[in-house]
Amino acid sequence: MEKLNITKRTKVKRLPKRASYERNEIYKILDDSFICHIGFKIDGQVNVIPTLYGRKDDMILIHGSNKSRMLKSFASSEDICISVTIIDGIVLARSAFHHSVNYRSVVLFGKPIEVLGNDEKAKSLEAIMEHIIPGRWNEARKPYEKELSITSVFSFKINEASAKFREGGPVDEKEDLELDIWAGILPIKSAFKEPLKDIILKKSINIPGYIGNYLDRKNKNN
Amino acid sequence: MEKLNITKRTKVKRLPKRASYERNEIYKILDDSFICHIGFKIDGQVNVIPTLYGRKDDMILIHGSNKSRMLKSFASSEDICISVTIIDGIVLARSAFHHSVNYRSVVLFGKPIEVLGNDEKAKSLEAIMEHIIPGRWNEARKPYEKELSITSVFSFKINEASAKFREGGPVDEKEDLELDIWAGILPIKSAFKEPLKDIILKKSINIPGYIGNYLDRKNKNN
Repeated sequence: MEKLNITKRTKVKRLPKRASYERNEIYKILDDSFICHIGFKIDGQVNVIPTLYGRKDDMILIHGSNKSRMLKSFASSEDICISVTIIDGIVLARSAFHHSVNYRSVVLFGKPIEVLGNDEKAKSLEAIMEHIIPGRWNEARKPYEKELSITSVFSFKINEASAKFREGGPVDEKEDLELDIWAGILPIKSAFKEPLKDIILKKSINIPGYIGNYLDRKNKNN
Repeated sequence: MEKLNITKRTKVKRLPKRASYERNEIYKILDDSFICHIGFKIDGQVNVIPTLYGRKDDMILIHGSNKSRMLKSFASSEDICISVTIIDGIVLARSAFHHSVNYRSVVLFGKPIEVLGNDEKAKSLEAIMEHIIPGRWNEARKPYEKELSITSVFSFKINEASAKFREGGPVDEKEDLELDIWAGILPIKSAFKEPLKDIILKKSINIPGYIGNYLDRKNKNN
């Protein structure tokens, strides 16, 4: 188990018992999602934009149009902040005060490093797609050079990061336990429904096995 | 239909046809979620933290411990950024390049306004709880003065905000349509599972009707 260095920025001050700096625990949360919220500055103003990501080894990879204001700002950016959050349930305590949510989250600070060259960009895009749906890259029509040339890709080293989580039931004051108030957890899961094929999909094409397996695995893990 | 003023910060430059500044459309997205990501600065460094929120009229309300670094920073804060994102599906195109996600999102800029006084704070906490689970505030044990006194509450006017969304199937290049590649949407829904009652809940307490109704409604809307 490798523990990341705790810095002033990543040290969890509120409820530190719910924090972790273990690389494996951080990876596990990152691997269970594919949407992050990135905080960055434009003309000094904080912006927060949702973005797809993939994790490959000790890197988070993101991509977008080379016209994106966010990605253009990364060229001259200080450290930005990436936040990944998975909500597992609403915790209903007897007292309003002790209501909470169960969640797993990661907050990461780091400098955007641009991935340059079409070969390297294609490899990063493959890693992002394989993070989201393993097997998809192999089937999809690969990017043309001109598509790669208008795509920007950035990587972030997973060095300065922390995980935070809450699990389990409500924790009420002792004096509230005898109240006639329902208490417990309303578990929330992100579930995949039946795939909808493109209305102009050729009739001969069936849904590939890797997608079926992916949906089964995702829905079972939930 | 009231349209918000478009500012330099809220004007959607990438794919503006997917943007909206209609107050009602922004409210609809805000009302379908209860988790936002807040971007703010501490010593100049951008931080992004996930937080529960409620919408009441033209305000977003958030709360937390008065020891929270984020909330303490709001006392002297410039405009911060609030981002709310709902993911509706993964869009698989034939080409890697045209893969996408279906989503609904809101980005809002505004100055944190502290809610002062225990009566006003209690009203705001009620609004947050009623946003998340209508009916819960009525059942829960209301906050004591001492609980209110260690809770900070902030509001944000919904004045400078934009919505952005994508819906529908993949949009491929014409020349790719004949490829033998599956294309379509993998719809994602946030679903509530069976409630888990607190293991020390008094045996005589059944789950209240408003919770059952809430779960039915949420799962049906999905």
